[in-house]
Amino acid sequence: MPRLITAFSNPLVKQVRGLRDKKQRRLEGLFIAEGLRILTEAREAGFLPSILFFNGAEPPHPLLRTLIEQIEAADGDVIETNADILGKLSGKDNPGTVIGVFEAFPTGLDRLDRASADLWIVAQSLRDPGNLGTILRTGDAVGAGGLILVDDCVDPFSVEAVRATMGALFTQMIATAPWEEFLPWLRSAGGELIGTSLNATLDYQQPRYRKPAFILVGNEAQGLPPAYEGECDMLVKIPMRGKADSLNAAVATAVMAYEVINQWRR
Amino acid sequence: MPRLITAFSNPLVKQVRGLRDKKQRRLEGLFIAEGLRILTEAREAGFLPSILFFNGAEPPHPLLRTLIEQIEAADGDVIETNADILGKLSGKDNPGTVIGVFEAFPTGLDRLDRASADLWIVAQSLRDPGNLGTILRTGDAVGAGGLILVDDCVDPFSVEAVRATMGALFTQMIATAPWEEFLPWLRSAGGELIGTSLNATLDYQQPRYRKPAFILVGNEAQGLPPAYEGECDMLVKIPMRGKADSLNAAVATAVMAYEVINQWRR
Repeated sequence: MPRLITAFSNPLVKQVRGLRDKKQRRLEGLFIAEGLRILTEAREAGFLPSILFFNGAEPPHPLLRTLIEQIEAADGDVIETNADILGKLSGKDNPGTVIGVFEAFPTGLDRLDRASADLWIVAQSLRDPGNLGTILRTGDAVGAGGLILVDDCVDPFSVEAVRATMGALFTQMIATAPWEEFLPWLRSAGGELIGTSLNATLDYQQPRYRKPAFILVGNEAQGLPPAYEGECDMLVKIPMRGKADSLNAAVATAVMAYEVINQWRR
Repeated sequence: MPRLITAFSNPLVKQVRGLRDKKQRRLEGLFIAEGLRILTEAREAGFLPSILFFNGAEPPHPLLRTLIEQIEAADGDVIETNADILGKLSGKDNPGTVIGVFEAFPTGLDRLDRASADLWIVAQSLRDPGNLGTILRTGDAVGAGGLILVDDCVDPFSVEAVRATMGALFTQMIATAPWEEFLPWLRSAGGELIGTSLNATLDYQQPRYRKPAFILVGNEAQGLPPAYEGECDMLVKIPMRGKADSLNAAVATAVMAYEVINQWRR
């Protein structure tokens, strides 16, 4: 049976609210995901929250009922609460009706099975949680093996990033690594590193891409460091006809990724 | 000479802060843009703010000096202030060093010169300011004539949307219209309406796109209404291999737009 918590001062409420802070997430190994859609995607991918908060004032959606049953069967903690508490936990004025607390999963490169896919996306110093989410969704759409976050990227377990992934966090593999660790891992087996850069002269539709392909995109404002561009097997540019310098990083990643899979599906 | 304002209670501060509200923007015909980069893009595109707030505590960037000179030469109001006031005006904890107040420009379909471009982007009930900004930047990159916002889209003059456009608001044409007005306008001259839809069976790489092309994308959550899909000359889908239903709307727009211009540049 769900237990009822409606006090801001409740220690569990305080603890979960603390998970909006990165340090706290690291310390506890937990993160928050909101919304019935994302939690259902998670469940279908085999991830159940260890704690679930739901709004008791609303008639329970059938998917919420399924979720509650499965969490209870797994000895999880199901908590009935109200919109105020949910808003406090999510930091949103209009919180969803449900928030789940999940155990963070490990993000080492060693978890990636390189044989599982022909295409991988590598993002370097990506700072925007919305871009991270969008790129992860793109990775899902193009059948990428996963997203590798190199150097100082936004935390994929932040509330904003999880929200932006729309559930792809649970269906796509994510790894994090500094460049010094990523590069030897990459070179330990076959695969071409394809950098997208404003400095490149090669049009992105010119090369014939080979499998496996690792698409590398740089920071939103700076692009890739020159030294990293130097390590790429190929440096390509997406043509831009406009006055502004650059496509959004997530858009550039998607345009590049679709070119690669379009070549392969011909 | 700049005048100094550092009081929250100053009427101008209150008025400009009010521009974060859509009704107020409509009433006053003004909107806010932040950041030296965006304001410089605006200036280069021929748009100067009628009021400029800048942080007097920081050494003025050369681009800021140029901006101030030109605004003063145009009899604009240049106001030296502090980070607190800038934060209050922008609603951000980390405001930029500069905020400009611009006159909103008209967004009627009659402002669009159809002969000016072969490609146009049409978004229906787009809700996310980040997506609006990203699509506008994509429009700039692919050389689109402009972005037409159909039905109940996010306000392109909202602080969040302006921020997300990174300056493309000033270089790209924007029009807004209800569908009932857009459709006769579209049909009043040549042009193919290409809808992107999860319901389509035609792969987006199959058709040969003709000029001028109008790419139509639907709401982030709902996609296009069936009746609108029925009005399209062509309904295409971008292949998705993943478990989630959909690419981000701005990503789908970009993948589609690059397919069209890639065909034309072959």
